[in-house]
Amino acid sequence: MKDFTVDNLTDEVVAAYVAGATSPRLAQVFESLVRHLHAFVLEVELSEGEWFEAIQFLTATGQQCDERRQEFILLSDTLGVSMLVDAINHPKGGQGTESTVLGPFYVEGAPDMPYGGDIRRRHLATAEPCLVTGRVTDADGQPIAGATLDVWQTSANGFYDVQEADAPQWNLRGRFTTNEAGEYALVTEKPVSYPVPTDGPVGRLLAAAGRHAFRPAHIHFIVRAPGCEALVTHVFVDGDPYLDSDAVFATKASLVGEFKPGTDTDLARRCGLDGPHSHLAFDFGLMPAGG
Amino acid sequence: MKDFTVDNLTDEVVAAYVAGATSPRLAQVFESLVRHLHAFVLEVELSEGEWFEAIQFLTATGQQCDERRQEFILLSDTLGVSMLVDAINHPKGGQGTESTVLGPFYVEGAPDMPYGGDIRRRHLATAEPCLVTGRVTDADGQPIAGATLDVWQTSANGFYDVQEADAPQWNLRGRFTTNEAGEYALVTEKPVSYPVPTDGPVGRLLAAAGRHAFRPAHIHFIVRAPGCEALVTHVFVDGDPYLDSDAVFATKASLVGEFKPGTDTDLARRCGLDGPHSHLAFDFGLMPAGG
Repeated sequence: MKDFTVDNLTDEVVAAYVAGATSPRLAQVFESLVRHLHAFVLEVELSEGEWFEAIQFLTATGQQCDERRQEFILLSDTLGVSMLVDAINHPKGGQGTESTVLGPFYVEGAPDMPYGGDIRRRHLATAEPCLVTGRVTDADGQPIAGATLDVWQTSANGFYDVQEADAPQWNLRGRFTTNEAGEYALVTEKPVSYPVPTDGPVGRLLAAAGRHAFRPAHIHFIVRAPGCEALVTHVFVDGDPYLDSDAVFATKASLVGEFKPGTDTDLARRCGLDGPHSHLAFDFGLMPAGG
Repeated sequence: MKDFTVDNLTDEVVAAYVAGATSPRLAQVFESLVRHLHAFVLEVELSEGEWFEAIQFLTATGQQCDERRQEFILLSDTLGVSMLVDAINHPKGGQGTESTVLGPFYVEGAPDMPYGGDIRRRHLATAEPCLVTGRVTDADGQPIAGATLDVWQTSANGFYDVQEADAPQWNLRGRFTTNEAGEYALVTEKPVSYPVPTDGPVGRLLAAAGRHAFRPAHIHFIVRAPGCEALVTHVFVDGDPYLDSDAVFATKASLVGEFKPGTDTDLARRCGLDGPHSHLAFDFGLMPAGG
């Protein structure tokens, strides 16, 4: 009969998961998972008390999740795993806009907005009006008409709408479509840096690691066009103090945008902005699907 | 500013978790965890769809847990991690009874029972009466009086009491104390092999791996005595068809007991057993605490 010991256990577990795995890919993933998980436990000689703390931590992480919050994505983000998956699946090719993590606060179904539409559904005194404009192009640099841009961001108080019980629905979210020249324009607030939620297990992990919880200010985009690979990315605010220590390791130099004082008064007025505002000009380059 | 890529991400994440870690031990655990987690993701080139399946799996595992069920312990058990932690923390020393996993169904506070007490709180037609006797000894082989034995097991229907809404409380659980000769005796049912719960995420994992969910029949024991290391173990039933493929990898040859037809009629009658029954004789050897 089987007599499991430190010396044979990993191989025995691998064999049990590989022998009858329902696909070759699953067998590959199971083997790698078991070998690395066991190697970690052996390397640190995990104590029984530490094992039980890990069980409690993972349980609490699952139980913190609901339709408005995904603590396991946040854990993946703060351990750099989400960014690693992004980097593996979207290698930098020298062409097209770089991708970064989706984050836990994307919501499908944001309202369609016209060219120059305003996604602010309330006006906080501390919020700085901001015009965002740019073009979407294909791999040949040709403008793409009818590309869609899903846009979302935090409010000036540092929260996404879904984190606040009394925020207007779809505040600072919208879906835009490029015009015949491949251009988009929208009105929003200049984003602010903000902490990821720290009142759950991930907050305790960050505290144990002595890490701050802040993300540099950014606007999220998902840019899509027929025949192109969907682009999930952020545009970060130049000069943000957290660009060098993003809590979720998602910054890329090419994704930093300049938020300048707005000077195109005509365009601003057409978008309903009369007073002082920031202006971000940012173009997105898409790559062919399956490329 | 930081520009995170496949090539530098793991080192950057490790540095972030090690630099300010609140203890050297945490720094060590964080570094090993991040390196192995990232190495796994890189090795299998985890796709975004697979990553999201993993997020959903872990979330569902946490949400399956309540005061009667611990799906993350079950996951740890079925991946061989619990047994590995046990093997690391209780290396086989050639002396004393070997340990094995606690499992997810231990409940503190089971009632104290007299010598020869009966832990059956109902009588299923398929249950086979069983007498269990033995001695608890120290590292020198001397009997220990006043050692306690926490005992628990499944019922003939394959469920622990806490898995059944209508089972009598503390069915097949009790705490026994050795007499002056270091002996214990108890009456129970002969345990049966049974599947771990398969209606949750772990059941889906086992199905994807083509693994059966059965554990070989066993009785759980925690044996304690002053000055000795607590012993968490099972006694398995000789001849069980699952001794070679325990769903949680917890079998050890030295922990297999012989359940023979009972012949000590006097002792059986003293314990309230009049008819045919099995008899398991099993001695437990404890080791010094901190040894």
